[in-house]
Amino acid sequence: MARRTVFFVSDQTGVTAETMGHSLLTQFEGLEFRQVTLPFISTVDKAEETVRRINATGLADGLRPVVFSTLVREDLRGVVRRSNGLFLDFFAAFLRPLEEELQVKSTMRQGRAHGIANADMYTARIAATNFALAADDGAVSSNYAKADVILIGVSRSGKTPTCIYMAMQYGVYAANYPLTDDDFESDKLPAMLQTHSDKLFGLTIRPERLHQIRSERKPGSRYASLAQCEYEVRTSEGLLRRFGIPQLDTTECSIEEIASRIIDAKDIERRLRP
Amino acid sequence: MARRTVFFVSDQTGVTAETMGHSLLTQFEGLEFRQVTLPFISTVDKAEETVRRINATGLADGLRPVVFSTLVREDLRGVVRRSNGLFLDFFAAFLRPLEEELQVKSTMRQGRAHGIANADMYTARIAATNFALAADDGAVSSNYAKADVILIGVSRSGKTPTCIYMAMQYGVYAANYPLTDDDFESDKLPAMLQTHSDKLFGLTIRPERLHQIRSERKPGSRYASLAQCEYEVRTSEGLLRRFGIPQLDTTECSIEEIASRIIDAKDIERRLRP
Repeated sequence: MARRTVFFVSDQTGVTAETMGHSLLTQFEGLEFRQVTLPFISTVDKAEETVRRINATGLADGLRPVVFSTLVREDLRGVVRRSNGLFLDFFAAFLRPLEEELQVKSTMRQGRAHGIANADMYTARIAATNFALAADDGAVSSNYAKADVILIGVSRSGKTPTCIYMAMQYGVYAANYPLTDDDFESDKLPAMLQTHSDKLFGLTIRPERLHQIRSERKPGSRYASLAQCEYEVRTSEGLLRRFGIPQLDTTECSIEEIASRIIDAKDIERRLRP
Repeated sequence: MARRTVFFVSDQTGVTAETMGHSLLTQFEGLEFRQVTLPFISTVDKAEETVRRINATGLADGLRPVVFSTLVREDLRGVVRRSNGLFLDFFAAFLRPLEEELQVKSTMRQGRAHGIANADMYTARIAATNFALAADDGAVSSNYAKADVILIGVSRSGKTPTCIYMAMQYGVYAANYPLTDDDFESDKLPAMLQTHSDKLFGLTIRPERLHQIRSERKPGSRYASLAQCEYEVRTSEGLLRRFGIPQLDTTECSIEEIASRIIDAKDIERRLRP
């Protein structure tokens, strides 16, 4: 099958163009796309180079490229619009109706979306990330006091990446507590966790998937064995249920989805909106 | 000034709706918006509840809300479109032209964008994140061999969050090497770094900003003093220059921008596209 090339063109990082592009492309199952991000297209020269590249790719592929654009500047959009690709113009589609509604002209400035518009926001984000990293090293009650949420689950149920993602994306302070044999044997939760019962959220996972993940890390170990995974998941789910802690099965979830579900379920306030 | 409410409505996580919304809203300087994310609106009941909430908010604010929608299902979009808000419909704007170009009907399935469409991709992402976390703990040459890129800079120049972001967002293996007094005194780079000179990328920062960041962490310390920050930045920049290592001033950059600039400059392949 011929493979079509998709360009994400931006005068800034390209993150918005990539995000919108992926959301649309996933709606076309079975098609294969070659994806190329062209960030920092911030001069007319670069825009013209982009057009040459799109056109050459179209000729080589024998298929018209698709161009997702988040170019803000009118002059740059004008240049890239004239390529032979299908030009999907994010700002043209939405900026005009928004201007009319708000009765304000947009500033049309480049690079507002992911620039460091606000040093306080940058600091908040880094602080939350550092919190997640520090809190990941050990269960310290001072971390739990400061946390917005405390994730509980067995090893490799997705706690750490979720905590880091929530910090980076939303500035949320997320700590975690790894359930281990001690907890399973005592069949209760440590007192310092019970103090913060309103912050607790459980992550669970199907034993087969856990076995697969752990096997990549420590193949052939008792830790990775299906029997051990089954035991831990069963006991962990029972423990969480008995303490009335909400839990989410992460087996089929992306990190984004786990994070969104937690924030939604616990009604956590986003500290930043990148 | 009256504050307008903006809703991000999605049948999935809402990440795409938030991303596109923020990109647009940052084009309107000086206006203040109250931002509300409504994820997982996946049934007609929830869609109708969303409409009631939008309409009630419009009445309370005395201003028509703005609704950024990434609802995929036609029936749900049909419901939310009838609210009193300004309905900005992501899929309506772009899906039709894309279907025509690709000559394929979209699957219109919900939740493809940030579901775990692909377990291999999930694994790649987690592996890259674990790599960044492990590599952050210490400078180990085996990490450098596996890395796609090695970031070099003084403490608090942005290395760690950038490595983690590149792992999460792009599946890129990013290690880092913190420049310390040892390096400044020897005035050269360790041999194990020189072996991987093609992977090296320097992060620098303005001394005043570094002083500010370090002061939040260790107020009044020698480490945080402006004199020490000036010394480290000057020496680090000289060292990087002498070894021909490209460097980026991160002072005005968001994490997204630092990551995109590095990937662009070093022509690093994205291992995944979330």
